[in-house]
Amino acid sequence: MRDLVIAGFDPGTARLGFGVIRGDDQPVPIDYGVIETPAHEPMPDRLKQLYEGVTAILRDYQPAVCAIEQLFFSRNVTTALSVGQARGIVMLAAAQAAVPVVEYTPAEVKQSVSGYGKADKNQMQEMVRIILGLHEAPWPDDAADALAVALCHVHLARFRDAIGE
Amino acid sequence: MRDLVIAGFDPGTARLGFGVIRGDDQPVPIDYGVIETPAHEPMPDRLKQLYEGVTAILRDYQPAVCAIEQLFFSRNVTTALSVGQARGIVMLAAAQAAVPVVEYTPAEVKQSVSGYGKADKNQMQEMVRIILGLHEAPWPDDAADALAVALCHVHLARFRDAIGE
Repeated sequence: MRDLVIAGFDPGTARLGFGVIRGDDQPVPIDYGVIETPAHEPMPDRLKQLYEGVTAILRDYQPAVCAIEQLFFSRNVTTALSVGQARGIVMLAAAQAAVPVVEYTPAEVKQSVSGYGKADKNQMQEMVRIILGLHEAPWPDDAADALAVALCHVHLARFRDAIGE
Repeated sequence: MRDLVIAGFDPGTARLGFGVIRGDDQPVPIDYGVIETPAHEPMPDRLKQLYEGVTAILRDYQPAVCAIEQLFFSRNVTTALSVGQARGIVMLAAAQAAVPVVEYTPAEVKQSVSGYGKADKNQMQEMVRIILGLHEAPWPDDAADALAVALCHVHLARFRDAIGE
């Protein structure tokens, strides 16, 4: 587990958050941000931009694992369809780069990062800031969420190490 | 419009239907079927298989247009997320092949193929069979649906030609 690079993703078609960390005992941020696509462009072109962005991140940082949030529900079906399109792109890019994808539920992410399964967005951003030793909370939300799911993987993997699994 | 090759797709992660036709005055089927992925494999690997299948179809038949059904709702959000992942793959492959994607509503597809916006699945399959001069109804459903959306594009494009648009 030590010293492995983990890439977290928060998929969306307008903004796709990414957070790359080194999963040491003290996790270190490597890079984070969002890939944004223009709303007025055709969806296929926007998905191509997301694909190229995610592929570049995987190529540049060679993560051992991609972590993404598992969604069971969403505000509505149109949102789910749209998020699904972006998730499909992340999963495809990972499969092509031979990087395994691990999914965590929102509750697992909150629990492992904040120690509390119902933490709100601000609490989560603040915890991510503290854990990663950042001066300011990671921004925008999508980048913070991507860092949180990457941290979740580190924490749960360390826990599995500790219990000898 | 004449003599153009149109590829219709009915995206799903377990079965992705495709139907390639030549959009002449009398539309001719070129190829149709489904790309199936094994349910027990990880989703990223399944999406990679779909991507390779769709990419091969676009490379082999060089369609002028990809037609897919526009979904406004679905049985549930989990289904929408899953269909979204497969749609994202089709759209990405089309964008990479520089083939425009045109979306039609289910009502447009039914109306244009059967002349009746509320035709059921069996009526649709039978109309697709007759229009394409097939001996048997295209099978499975996913392939028939993909042929139907490709036919919808041909019909609506011919209509636009006729009114001089």
